[in-house]
Amino acid sequence: MSIHSSKLIDDVVQQFHRLPGIGKKSAMRFALHLLKMSEDEVSAFSQSFTQMRSKIMFCKECHNISNTEVCDVCSSPQRDRSKICVVEDIRDVIAIENTGQYHGLYHVLGGIISPIDGKGPGDLNIPTLLEKAQKEEHKEIILALKTTIEGDTTNFYLFKKLKDIEVSVSTIARGIAFGDELEYTDEITLGRSILNRTPYQGALL
Amino acid sequence: MSIHSSKLIDDVVQQFHRLPGIGKKSAMRFALHLLKMSEDEVSAFSQSFTQMRSKIMFCKECHNISNTEVCDVCSSPQRDRSKICVVEDIRDVIAIENTGQYHGLYHVLGGIISPIDGKGPGDLNIPTLLEKAQKEEHKEIILALKTTIEGDTTNFYLFKKLKDIEVSVSTIARGIAFGDELEYTDEITLGRSILNRTPYQGALL
Repeated sequence: MSIHSSKLIDDVVQQFHRLPGIGKKSAMRFALHLLKMSEDEVSAFSQSFTQMRSKIMFCKECHNISNTEVCDVCSSPQRDRSKICVVEDIRDVIAIENTGQYHGLYHVLGGIISPIDGKGPGDLNIPTLLEKAQKEEHKEIILALKTTIEGDTTNFYLFKKLKDIEVSVSTIARGIAFGDELEYTDEITLGRSILNRTPYQGALL
Repeated sequence: MSIHSSKLIDDVVQQFHRLPGIGKKSAMRFALHLLKMSEDEVSAFSQSFTQMRSKIMFCKECHNISNTEVCDVCSSPQRDRSKICVVEDIRDVIAIENTGQYHGLYHVLGGIISPIDGKGPGDLNIPTLLEKAQKEEHKEIILALKTTIEGDTTNFYLFKKLKDIEVSVSTIARGIAFGDELEYTDEITLGRSILNRTPYQGALL
């Protein structure tokens, strides 16, 4: 330990630096924050991570978080087994569940194809999706990935892989978000929203 | 545990949310990142925090981090004991040590007076500073706080508290930073840099 630094603090900075979007300066700020917390608080802080990591399981069917081998959604008789909604990660499952508009199954890819981040199809939960699509009588695969080049690439890859299986593939609608002004919408979105116009469904609110 | 959420993840989100500047969305991103790490990695991650918190001591003289009761700076016979440099936190000690220009002692306040953050003089290491200034033959207290309203307030507060003690109080120089253009410098800084002009000291590089 030098006069003005400490290996213990350096370790903590290094660990925080591993988190996405956290640089050395923020990591140092976090380390100092921990030093101001009581020992009990820091130990609760640390324990939450190991607890979560050791106790959480992933459903072997859909790769969503679960407390059993097969998650509550995959094993529920109330869910519509004819539909599988493919999402990037569990945050998307939470977001879609919160809408209350979807009652089918999910499939969590665990990322999207992104060569820049070194992520290829081999890093995603694609084999289990293809297997599942073939095995059961699923009728529709709904691709609910983000609207970026990476999302589009992944959609295209999955579409090609799924086209030999008897299943219809759809993507979630892209268009003008609720509250958005037409004037400030980019041309691709506005163009698609006209091409993919839908019959009037009544007031949204 | 509900279908799409988990108390274990909520706990982690809650803990990350305690870190300065981290909202619920970032906290969730960190939680997912930990789920992608191996159990060993997560346990190393967690251990670094408890290790640091339990092993690091604070010097009882200057409140800097230390591995002994009194830190290496405070106990060194090589340091100039006539000067005390008052800083906000240990990051500032590191920054000043890195300049190699200062050989006196330090005093870490542990914050600055900031009513907006609920920080008053009572929350800072001020009593030990006053005690130290009175007891020993320190000749100069150098206030090295940041150049904000809170920093200025703290400077003023300390100056008032120190004025009955036989010690001279100075602040670090404020002026144009190395590499800055005069044109883009704010008026207060430029004005002060003219008022506080110094004799030419030769080229900086």
